[in-house]
Order: sequence, then C-alpha cells, then structure tokens
Amino acid sequence: MQREKLLVNGERLKETIETFADFGRTPNNGVTRLSLSEEDIKVRDYFTSCCEELGMTVKVDDMGCMYATLPGEDNEAAPIVMGSHLDTVKKGGRFDGVLGVISGLEVVRTLVDNKIKPKIPVTIMNFTNEEGARFEPSMMASGVLSGKFEKEVMLKKKDPEGVTFEEALNASGYAGEVENRISEASAYLELHIEQGPVLEKEELSIGVVDCVVGMACYEIEVTGESDHAGTTPMTMRKDALFAANDCITELRSKLSTLDSELVYTMGRMNVLPNIHTVIPNKVIFTIEARHKDEDVIRQVEEIIQGLPDSNEGCTIKKTKLWGRDTVWFEERIVDAVEEATKSLGYSYKKMASGAGHDAQFVASYLPSAMIFVPSVNGKSHCEDELTPYEDCEKGVNVLLETVLSLLPE
Amino acid sequence: MQREKLLVNGERLKETIETFADFGRTPNNGVTRLSLSEEDIKVRDYFTSCCEELGMTVKVDDMGCMYATLPGEDNEAAPIVMGSHLDTVKKGGRFDGVLGVISGLEVVRTLVDNKIKPKIPVTIMNFTNEEGARFEPSMMASGVLSGKFEKEVMLKKKDPEGVTFEEALNASGYAGEVENRISEASAYLELHIEQGPVLEKEELSIGVVDCVVGMACYEIEVTGESDHAGTTPMTMRKDALFAANDCITELRSKLSTLDSELVYTMGRMNVLPNIHTVIPNKVIFTIEARHKDEDVIRQVEEIIQGLPDSNEGCTIKKTKLWGRDTVWFEERIVDAVEEATKSLGYSYKKMASGAGHDAQFVASYLPSAMIFVPSVNGKSHCEDELTPYEDCEKGVNVLLETVLSLLPE
Repeated sequence: MQREKLLVNGERLKETIETFADFGRTPNNGVTRLSLSEEDIKVRDYFTSCCEELGMTVKVDDMGCMYATLPGEDNEAAPIVMGSHLDTVKKGGRFDGVLGVISGLEVVRTLVDNKIKPKIPVTIMNFTNEEGARFEPSMMASGVLSGKFEKEVMLKKKDPEGVTFEEALNASGYAGEVENRISEASAYLELHIEQGPVLEKEELSIGVVDCVVGMACYEIEVTGESDHAGTTPMTMRKDALFAANDCITELRSKLSTLDSELVYTMGRMNVLPNIHTVIPNKVIFTIEARHKDEDVIRQVEEIIQGLPDSNEGCTIKKTKLWGRDTVWFEERIVDAVEEATKSLGYSYKKMASGAGHDAQFVASYLPSAMIFVPSVNGKSHCEDELTPYEDCEKGVNVLLETVLSLLPE
Repeated sequence: MQREKLLVNGERLKETIETFADFGRTPNNGVTRLSLSEEDIKVRDYFTSCCEELGMTVKVDDMGCMYATLPGEDNEAAPIVMGSHLDTVKKGGRFDGVLGVISGLEVVRTLVDNKIKPKIPVTIMNFTNEEGARFEPSMMASGVLSGKFEKEVMLKKKDPEGVTFEEALNASGYAGEVENRISEASAYLELHIEQGPVLEKEELSIGVVDCVVGMACYEIEVTGESDHAGTTPMTMRKDALFAANDCITELRSKLSTLDSELVYTMGRMNVLPNIHTVIPNKVIFTIEARHKDEDVIRQVEEIIQGLPDSNEGCTIKKTKLWGRDTVWFEERIVDAVEEATKSLGYSYKKMASGAGHDAQFVASYLPSAMIFVPSVNGKSHCEDELTPYEDCEKGVNVLLETVLSLLPE
C-alpha cells in the first residue's frame, strides 16, 4: 500500500536558511562562521532552541558535536541520524554544511507538524570543525569519532591567533561528555551541496552519492641552478622552470588518456628565487588526482612516479604527501535515497563526491549515504555559493522520504 | 718600435682585493656593502687615502660618484677614465664592481712605480649605487649622469627602512658638486667579472666586450577560474596553470629556433590562489630575452605577442614591462682592448655583455669599452663569486696595456 507522500514546507525552509545565514553574514551575502567562533556559538545556541521547541533533547560530546534527538517509540533502538556541520570557511556561503543540519530540522518539523511519532529516535547532528578553516585539519571531529585522528593531538591544534582547539572548545560552553558520542545508528544521512558543476550542467535535481572518491597527492620538487638570466647561454643552464614545464606537460598528456572521470590538479606551485632576471633554481608543485576506482589512482601514481629523475640538468623528486581510498557508502542506504528520489519524480544521477565530507569518516562505522543538491556554477567556499531554494527543498524532500522509508513500520 | 711590456704587481693586486673585501666581509667570505652604508663609506675613505698616497686628487660629484685623478702633463686634456662601483648586493662577492676600481688603482700604482707621468690625466671612477640593492634602480648614478634617469626622482628613492637616497647621500659625507661630474674623457674603460660561465667553459682569459645586449621583458597574465579540485570535471575547468604551461611550451619551442646566442628566461611566476585543492585562477609570469641583434629581439617580441589570447578557457594578456636596445661600445676603444690582449698573448674572445653595467650608460656620451675576466661557475651576486687572482691579474694587465696604448705619445 502506497502511503500518501509527505512534503516539507519550502517557505519555512527558505526562512530557516536565511535565519541561520544571519549568524556571520558578510556584506556580500556570504557567511563567515569559523568553528567555535562567536558566530558559531550563537548559531549553536539558536539551533538548540529550535530543536528544544520541537521536543528534542540536545546533547553534546567531548569534541563539541551536537546531537538533537526526537524521541521515538523505542528509545533503546539505534536512531536515524541526519547531519552535517554549521561552521564555514572565511567568506564562505550560506549553504555548505549548514544545509545538512537545517534539512534535518525541516524533516523533524514536518514529522512534528504531521504528528508522526517515529518508531525509533531521529537525531540531527552538527559536527564540530568540518572545514578546518580555523583549526586544521578539516573533518576534525568526525575524524576523532571514527578513530582517524587522535583526540589528544587535535586538542592541541592552534588557530592563527595561537588559541588551541581545546581552549576554544572549553570557552565555547560546548565541551560535552565522551559518552554522548554517537556509537550506533540505523542510518547516517548527509545532505550537502554538490560543490561542483555537474548537476547544474546536466540539469538534474538530485545527486545520489554512492562514494567519496579516493585520491593521491604528490609534491614534485625540481632542483636546478640559479644563474644570471643575461649571461648564461641556454646550453649551460639548469632551469628548474623548464624542467617543471616538461613534467607538467608529461603529466597532463598521460593523465588525459586515463578515465574521463579522473580529475587532476596542480594547485600549488612555487618558483624560487622568483626574480625575473634570475634563472629559477627550484620549482615545487603539487599534483593531486581523484577517482573512485582505485585502479585508476594506482595508474596515476605510476605516471607520477614514472616522471624522469632528471631533465634539463635538474633533479626531479616526487614525494607522496598523502592519499586516501575511495569510501563506498552503504548500498542499502544509497538504494533508499535513490528510491526516495524516484518516488518523488525528481531527476537525478548516481554520482561520486569529489570533495571530502564528515560522512566519509562516519561511513567507517555507521551505515551512511549522502544526497547532493546542485551548486550554481559549481561554486562553493565563497560568498556567491548558491543553491536555489527550490533545489534545497527538493533535496530535503528526498531526505524526508528516505528517513520515512528507513523508519521501521 | 716595440716598447718594453709593463706588467702590474700580482701580489699587490691580490692583497688589495682582500683588503677591500674586509669592508663588509661576511662569515662566508662574501661581501655586503650596500650603497652609502657604513661599509661603503669606510671603503670610500680607504680608497681616497690609497689614491691620495699616489698623488691623486679626489673629487666627488652631486650623485656621490668619486673621481681620483693622477695629473698628466696636459691637465686641460680629457682624461682616460677607468672605473666601476664599490657597492655590492647583500651577501655579494669580493669581485663584482670593486675589481673595476681596484684595477684602476693597480694601473696607477704601476705607472707611479715606473715613474711614468702620463701625457693626459688618468682618472679612477667609483659610480654610486650601481647594484640598486639598497635604492632601486640599479646603475642609478651613471643613469643620472647620462640623462637616463631624473636626478630629482632618484633623490627621493627610499631604501627598505624608508631612508631616501638624498638623506643617505648627505649623511655619508659624499655629496659633492654637480660641476665635478665627468663630461668628457678620451676613453672610459670598465674591467668587470663576466658573471657568466662562457670564458671559464671555453678556457679563455679575457672577454673583449663590444656591446651590452638589448633585451625585452614581458609579463604574461593568464586568467582562468578557481574551482574545487575534486568536484570539477576536467572538461568544465578553466585552469590557468594548464594554459600557462601551454604558453611556456610554445615560447620555449619557438624561441629555441632563433639564434643560438639568444637567452630567455621565465624567472618570476606566481600561481593563485596557490592551494593544492583549488584549480588556479591566475598565473602571472615574466619572460625576458636578450640578444645583441635587435632583429632577433624583434622576432622574440613577435613570438610573445603571437601567443593566443585565450586557451583552456582562460584569457592570456601580454604586457611589455620594458626593453632596451643593444649598446655598442666605441670600436676604436674595443680594438685597443683587443690589441692589448693580443700583445700580452692572452687567450680571449670578443663577446657581448648579457648583464647591465655603468658602462652601458656612460657609452652614450663617452667613448667606452669593457674588459671581462672569468667567473668560476658563472656565479656572481653571491658569496661564492670567484675570479682566480691570476685571472684578475691578467685582466688588469690588459687594462694597463690598453691605457698605455691610448695615452698620447
């Protein structure tokens, strides 16, 4: 028997998005809400009051993560969890992270509006310091919760002013108890903006995210000799920029023959001594590549390692900075998201997440999946980050429908 | 009739080099003697005392340039001038500049030793602030004397501490009279280290310098779009680094087909935002090229201007920062240097100077030429700058022989 389709309140969702954006809104309609900053503390307080108004109980763990729980009929059962993060980068947008928390709120509001008491508890989570914009690394709290990062090391991380994470956490009033950490859930669902141009370009409403892609990041250090640009004949040079230019050409040429879904970027590059009249003696650049298939990443690494050790009289050193394997989400939960999307009649595609999210750490111990909504021009982490309200609404409808489908009858 | 060959005192020359290097010597046996610094003032005082001991008269002009003159038989006649500069860059070497002054001193000492009273006056010059390491631009005083730079503008130039050139000059005690500026000379001879590897590589003792090469310097600005490295498919990118990579490849490929004496360098390159997870939206780099033949430089400029205006979705802007024409030295003086070298039996080649020197400005109003001595590994402007004493000595012998040949009988 098909139950009647429940939909969220789009107007209320829009207002909630804008109300949350008021905490740290910038003159250009972006948001600066660094983790555990005054703005972050205020938005946490406001989020708490919104949840308590709905009859939810709010707990905080020792990393400052928040858990707002709507009681179910069986409160011993593992909850369904929706969540993301409330912090932003400096001059970030109104959607990245916060939308995953607000969408949980809108789902619960809709349940309460409709007097639906779920069989099991429904929890909304806010992970602390996902962006890593104030305290590196990013996804700090979800990393600690999943055992990827050591708590003691994280507590000592300092912001640019020298304040440690521990000091900021204690001062915020959001240092809770370790026993409040989430240890089980029947599902973890994270709705997030895509942060890429694919959904918009393909005119799709929803991304059913089945994985967070694996990646490898290398640093290439080219060392030559720095001589006078006017007096050194071309044949007597060891020009590190020329050698780096050849490396990049070779990387681009070989990587372009691999899978079309592979992305690769030389984002950081420094030239020394960086004087127009001096031949560069050193060029250091990064190359990072991402793909869901670990075999493709392995081929990328072979191509990088296969760069010559010397060229143009320069030495070429390749150092792996880090890598991560593709995180596959729980098939059952991904299927539930896909079915929910279909049942709502929204256009969608199954896709990988190219960016990192709390869900990729959570997925190591809780059955997880993600829902993407389109990013206009693929922009994020900037003030003109935008997802139209109607797209947000569709995403939250998918989230609600997924939750309903996962709730025990 | 062949007169007996006069030679300088190599032992004394070596001692003089080391004594002058004591003014600002660094722990690594280099020299830091910025223009009009305490060290520069002390070395000027010492140079004055050395000259006065020889019966020379020392005058100073309004830019702080020093003129030490050994009287001749006819003191109304235009002098023969030898010179260069006593200032160095920070952590520079013991030879760049100072060797051109010391060699003049050794020439005069040899004349005095041999009781040779020249027919016309013989002057040793020290140009103020050739390096431009404290006050930009380089070749400041010779630029003012030759009308290339405006004195009033130069006086206002500030060092990194905010001290103006005028203030430093007045405080030094080396602010002299405008009427002391050199206005005529029968020859201007500048002995200098090559600052390049050619003489050493070709195992030659002397460079007979017939010109300072012309050059053109451009800035290439590539503008793309900065998107997330993980979420933006390759086909939807506007990667400024990729576009810059193509520009550099094209420049290298086309420039390499021009003359083998052409040198070209991309010395400065900045990538923005320079974050490994973000696609670069801007790359700015310089390309400078030098060659004695202006037709070759014209072809270089055509190649640079011929770079596409767009590539990889990025725009490419080319801006000429500056250029200069080749300065040809006076044939008669160059020939005199060559004849002197031959007569001493030293190996040599006629060559262009790839670096800039005071002589290139002086050449605009006085008959000039330069003499190069080898630079070990082509190094200069660094603490391991080195020209073996015996090579210095050969250079000074050529200078002496040239002066003797140019003196009226």
